[in-house]
Amino acid sequence: MTNLIYLDNSATTPLHPEVLQAMMPYFTEEYGNPSSIYGLGQSAKEAVESARVQVAEAIGAKPTEIYFTGCGSEADNWAIKGIAKAREKKGKHIISSAIEHHAVLHTLESLEKQGFEVTYLPVDSDGKVSPESVKAAIRPDTILITIMMANNEIGTIEPIAEIGAIAKEHGVVFHTDAVQAVGSVPVNVAEMSIDMLSMSAHKFRGPKGIGALYVKNGIRPEIFMHGGAQERARRAGTENVASIVGMGKAISLATGALSEKMQKISALRDYLIAGIQEKIPYIKLNGHPTDRLPGNVNFSFQFIEGESLLLLLDLNGVAASSGSACTSGSLDPSHVLLALGLPHEIAHGSLRLSIGEQNTKEEIDKVLELLPNIVQRLRDMSPLYEQVKNQE
Amino acid sequence: MTNLIYLDNSATTPLHPEVLQAMMPYFTEEYGNPSSIYGLGQSAKEAVESARVQVAEAIGAKPTEIYFTGCGSEADNWAIKGIAKAREKKGKHIISSAIEHHAVLHTLESLEKQGFEVTYLPVDSDGKVSPESVKAAIRPDTILITIMMANNEIGTIEPIAEIGAIAKEHGVVFHTDAVQAVGSVPVNVAEMSIDMLSMSAHKFRGPKGIGALYVKNGIRPEIFMHGGAQERARRAGTENVASIVGMGKAISLATGALSEKMQKISALRDYLIAGIQEKIPYIKLNGHPTDRLPGNVNFSFQFIEGESLLLLLDLNGVAASSGSACTSGSLDPSHVLLALGLPHEIAHGSLRLSIGEQNTKEEIDKVLELLPNIVQRLRDMSPLYEQVKNQE
Repeated sequence: MTNLIYLDNSATTPLHPEVLQAMMPYFTEEYGNPSSIYGLGQSAKEAVESARVQVAEAIGAKPTEIYFTGCGSEADNWAIKGIAKAREKKGKHIISSAIEHHAVLHTLESLEKQGFEVTYLPVDSDGKVSPESVKAAIRPDTILITIMMANNEIGTIEPIAEIGAIAKEHGVVFHTDAVQAVGSVPVNVAEMSIDMLSMSAHKFRGPKGIGALYVKNGIRPEIFMHGGAQERARRAGTENVASIVGMGKAISLATGALSEKMQKISALRDYLIAGIQEKIPYIKLNGHPTDRLPGNVNFSFQFIEGESLLLLLDLNGVAASSGSACTSGSLDPSHVLLALGLPHEIAHGSLRLSIGEQNTKEEIDKVLELLPNIVQRLRDMSPLYEQVKNQE
Repeated sequence: MTNLIYLDNSATTPLHPEVLQAMMPYFTEEYGNPSSIYGLGQSAKEAVESARVQVAEAIGAKPTEIYFTGCGSEADNWAIKGIAKAREKKGKHIISSAIEHHAVLHTLESLEKQGFEVTYLPVDSDGKVSPESVKAAIRPDTILITIMMANNEIGTIEPIAEIGAIAKEHGVVFHTDAVQAVGSVPVNVAEMSIDMLSMSAHKFRGPKGIGALYVKNGIRPEIFMHGGAQERARRAGTENVASIVGMGKAISLATGALSEKMQKISALRDYLIAGIQEKIPYIKLNGHPTDRLPGNVNFSFQFIEGESLLLLLDLNGVAASSGSACTSGSLDPSHVLLALGLPHEIAHGSLRLSIGEQNTKEEIDKVLELLPNIVQRLRDMSPLYEQVKNQE
């Protein structure tokens, strides 16, 4: 593994050593249940509450507005189903976008089966949702707008503050899936008029299996996880103390020196994009050219299959992705790339390289050395490429 | 903490050092997302699948019948809501018991608000559900029976195999919350005719924040957590690899030498029960005298408040509980103790001491030395006790 070039930081990130260090006491001597009233339980509870403060501070929220969940998907499920149930008497219309993560899309589909109506707004060729289209879609029976903060495949950052202002003006609850954004770009729920926000620790060098939902005070989604009185009786289940502590530490680290980190990572990103554009013909950069996640690079390569590209990269020690990790195994092309207007055959030949703070320029140079050869090798196997070459 | 006598193993257990050791690689170099196709992702996937085999083997299931969840409460929510939604066209009647955990009871209450009807079977004074009462409660529109395997407060073990046989005979889906049972007593889903079973790793020296639902092949609860294609597309969310590995290791350790462990722990339990009965008057053992969890001791002490008892025990280095950790903070007496027929004032004066494999006879001796004095001190403050004493 030592020589692995890991460029799939949007799928998951290596746990930060300081995060693991912060978690360790809660795997050893501090094993109390935070709901227990004796000392061992109370020190676990204090650790959970400190982490809640860390998470709240990182996004400009109050600690009482943070609820820990088992993952980012749970936060999305809770936010969307919770508001749908709490407000169904007011209306059954929800506004979303065509490029949401499946944790949002499949949740919305489950609501459609229960009689809710969802407007999936289209995006432009860069993957942007237009705030005007959100405004135009609002109806008297609209109860929820759910638009992601940054897309997981193409990295496009959505105009969340504008959409938030529109939602606020119309009195519609606004949720954003910020799983890819938190820890990567500045997030402030107050400035962005966000009512609910989903996040996931393992996307910013925290542990897997822990997420959080921010719920603005006054907003009351129905309970998703029924049971004990944990999380102010709104999310049951014994608190995952070690992982909660890890999430708090990770979000502090990730947002503590955010602008330096963004600068470093986006410099690598731009260097990688420029290098690919210079060295490889018949390609298309997917996603917005500038409003994109600092670490996101997504290209379509004509005449090749994304999966073959990944396999050859893997053989050469580069870990990358064709898009969302959560849909791997599926042979359908990405719904995100199709929403940009890409034809099926182009969408199939896509590659996401997502850069993290631990990546180096040397690693990017190595990829820029390997990738053109791999692409060429695959194209040489394509009869279509042969035709095009001969026509030139 | 070194001198702490931890007797709250039903609330949570200390992580087994070998479990932590098994988890560590997945917090360091093995950080891949199991959905990724490159080597790092695939080795994470293999680790998840090995753990699935370990969990399946421990309860007599097939690996394809095990779904990892974020906690035991999620498993309960999924099982119950999932069957309710999947079968509501067949009927809307559910059978349960009055002494279930809140993860079951509050889930059932949420279904009652949606038009489902729930029969809560009473229990006898030992906390037993009668299989005949289950049989008598079945109606043509009954779609689910959910009865816990062992009670978390009083330790009573329910006649699950008999209830399972009845459910099977009547073609009703049978779910059991086995959060307190798995790892403590033998569990075999095939022999017990169980269709769905919930468990939680931190109850058997695994990590917090990971559980599993066993779902018999052919049973199809609706999806609870929508999103990505993880867990054979039935439970979304990036796999919590380290914790899943920890759960696999913990269940193997817990069930590997189960009969020796049960023997050791129940000997300590019986010694503690006998000691308390010998040394302290005006008490009542709650729960079944013999069909009870090996580590469970639950007594009501007349004339005192459980909370004061816990505080004084804590000051003396003993961690215990008044009942379920999940409802601490509530001033209501335990619904379980009330269901046994205990009057409010007796239920208020209850103490659960739950023994784990790490406890020693020396620790029990120490408790038997401390407890009578603490109880006496509290009783001396009670005007009611004064009266009774004077009448003698």
